[in-house]
Amino acid sequence: MQVKPVCIFHRHRTENENSVHVFPAPIPEWRSQIEQALDHASKFSADCPPRLQESIRYSLLAGGKRLRPLLALLSCEICGGDISRAMPAACALEMIHTYSLIHDDLPAMDDDDLRRGRPTNHVQFGEATAILAGDGLLTHAFFWLSTRVNDPKHAVACTHELAIASGITGMVGGQQADLEAETADPETLNLEVLQEIHRRKTGCLIRCAMRMGALIANATSVQLDALTYYGECIGLAFQIADDLLDVTGSAEKMGKQVAKDTQHKKLTFPSQLGLDESQSQAEQLVKEAISALKIFPGNTAALEAIAMYSVFRDH
Amino acid sequence: MQVKPVCIFHRHRTENENSVHVFPAPIPEWRSQIEQALDHASKFSADCPPRLQESIRYSLLAGGKRLRPLLALLSCEICGGDISRAMPAACALEMIHTYSLIHDDLPAMDDDDLRRGRPTNHVQFGEATAILAGDGLLTHAFFWLSTRVNDPKHAVACTHELAIASGITGMVGGQQADLEAETADPETLNLEVLQEIHRRKTGCLIRCAMRMGALIANATSVQLDALTYYGECIGLAFQIADDLLDVTGSAEKMGKQVAKDTQHKKLTFPSQLGLDESQSQAEQLVKEAISALKIFPGNTAALEAIAMYSVFRDH
Repeated sequence: MQVKPVCIFHRHRTENENSVHVFPAPIPEWRSQIEQALDHASKFSADCPPRLQESIRYSLLAGGKRLRPLLALLSCEICGGDISRAMPAACALEMIHTYSLIHDDLPAMDDDDLRRGRPTNHVQFGEATAILAGDGLLTHAFFWLSTRVNDPKHAVACTHELAIASGITGMVGGQQADLEAETADPETLNLEVLQEIHRRKTGCLIRCAMRMGALIANATSVQLDALTYYGECIGLAFQIADDLLDVTGSAEKMGKQVAKDTQHKKLTFPSQLGLDESQSQAEQLVKEAISALKIFPGNTAALEAIAMYSVFRDH
Repeated sequence: MQVKPVCIFHRHRTENENSVHVFPAPIPEWRSQIEQALDHASKFSADCPPRLQESIRYSLLAGGKRLRPLLALLSCEICGGDISRAMPAACALEMIHTYSLIHDDLPAMDDDDLRRGRPTNHVQFGEATAILAGDGLLTHAFFWLSTRVNDPKHAVACTHELAIASGITGMVGGQQADLEAETADPETLNLEVLQEIHRRKTGCLIRCAMRMGALIANATSVQLDALTYYGECIGLAFQIADDLLDVTGSAEKMGKQVAKDTQHKKLTFPSQLGLDESQSQAEQLVKEAISALKIFPGNTAALEAIAMYSVFRDH
């Protein structure tokens, strides 16, 4: 990937370049629907020990961008589907994302104390409960798909997509590769290795959100391919932006420690490409993501806005 | 549950009461099929980091009783189904069981160094990889169901059963309740609490094995109910026997530390009921499990033998 600097979004920036408002009107309304659906999905029966439920809800209902659920709903809508049918898949995606944050924050993994401005799950509830909350959420995601996705064919397709995206060749594999990169010979680390880590660690689940939404809407293969490519582009763009924010962001806005990557000498896009080149490559990916939406006759403004948000954000 | 001592299996005991041979001829043959299927199911693509695959296979292919897969296959067969169609579910059950062992052995959980005569996963591969191996196996179980169970309705039903049995109201919830019991006021702990912990921690997955096998064979509701009850009985019997073996077994045969429960003053059946009463209650459960099989016209010898094995074993 060799890209010249591009800056295509001047019009979307406010005067303060670090505070870009890009979400169009329909999205906040869906956000409240997503929050309600997640709340409903995590009110367990009395068979769940109360402290385990509390620990799961502490992390699942802690806000966050809800990017993956939003993408699943938008993907479903742009293919002409009913977004309410994609809501279980949207919730399952957020459960998987949340479990991965709980486990990644553990002392044996990234050892983080702060997440979304609050103590991480294991700091709040202890390591054992945090491990079980993660395991429980991961399992509950598949329970939710099997119970709430109406059509069995869609339920199986979503289970398949989610398991691939979050499993040993997807997110879990990416986390392992990331851990190994920390102790690897620096000579073996390059941009390709970095992209491959992030494709699996972050990209796969974002791509999966697009695919699940499209599958539930019975998308054509052309639509599915376009939305898959959109997901791949913004997934990588999002991670480049995360790496940039670790350098340039504030702990207050991020709700977590910053400059950790530099402290730990982690393999990042800025360390490989420099700040400016990282930024421009992220912008090029956003451009490609938006181009992929051209095949859709309907209003793609929301998906365009999220593509831009993946890069132009301050947290 | 107030049961008088029963001893119904003299004829199955050998001269050495601690070395009971109960598995009839057909089962060892299936065992090799199960081992092959698990080996095949854990040969991942190159996208899985090699060390993660090694860690998963270290635990998944470490032997063990393969009780849950066997039960799924036998349940399918007794309902007239083709056991090859139940093999993916059998493998998924063993993946879930194995992930739970990896996570339960972690320092933050039961902190065990030895499992099946070898170092536990985190001792061998480090805590981070062990956590990820568990997460990966858990996810792979659902991937395997979605990919390998032919009929989408069966795949969804199995996903549903497995997620309930292993999730926050099942196995994960049971592990949380077990952890909480360790620090609870002893006054609040009684036989009912203990049974409830084990129903969730061990019983649910054994029950699930019976149900998945039956569902794949398109069992009638009477058949499904009978096999569900069989699973509930032997699940509890198995756990009582485990508690007894912790007191009476040898580390060599068990392949793990013994007398840990007593050391840690854990809530166990022997601590609540005494050794003799625990043994007789376990035997009564075996009797009930075998009674439940009466509705089946075919040969139930293998399921009867496993019911007996759940109690009469030395490891």
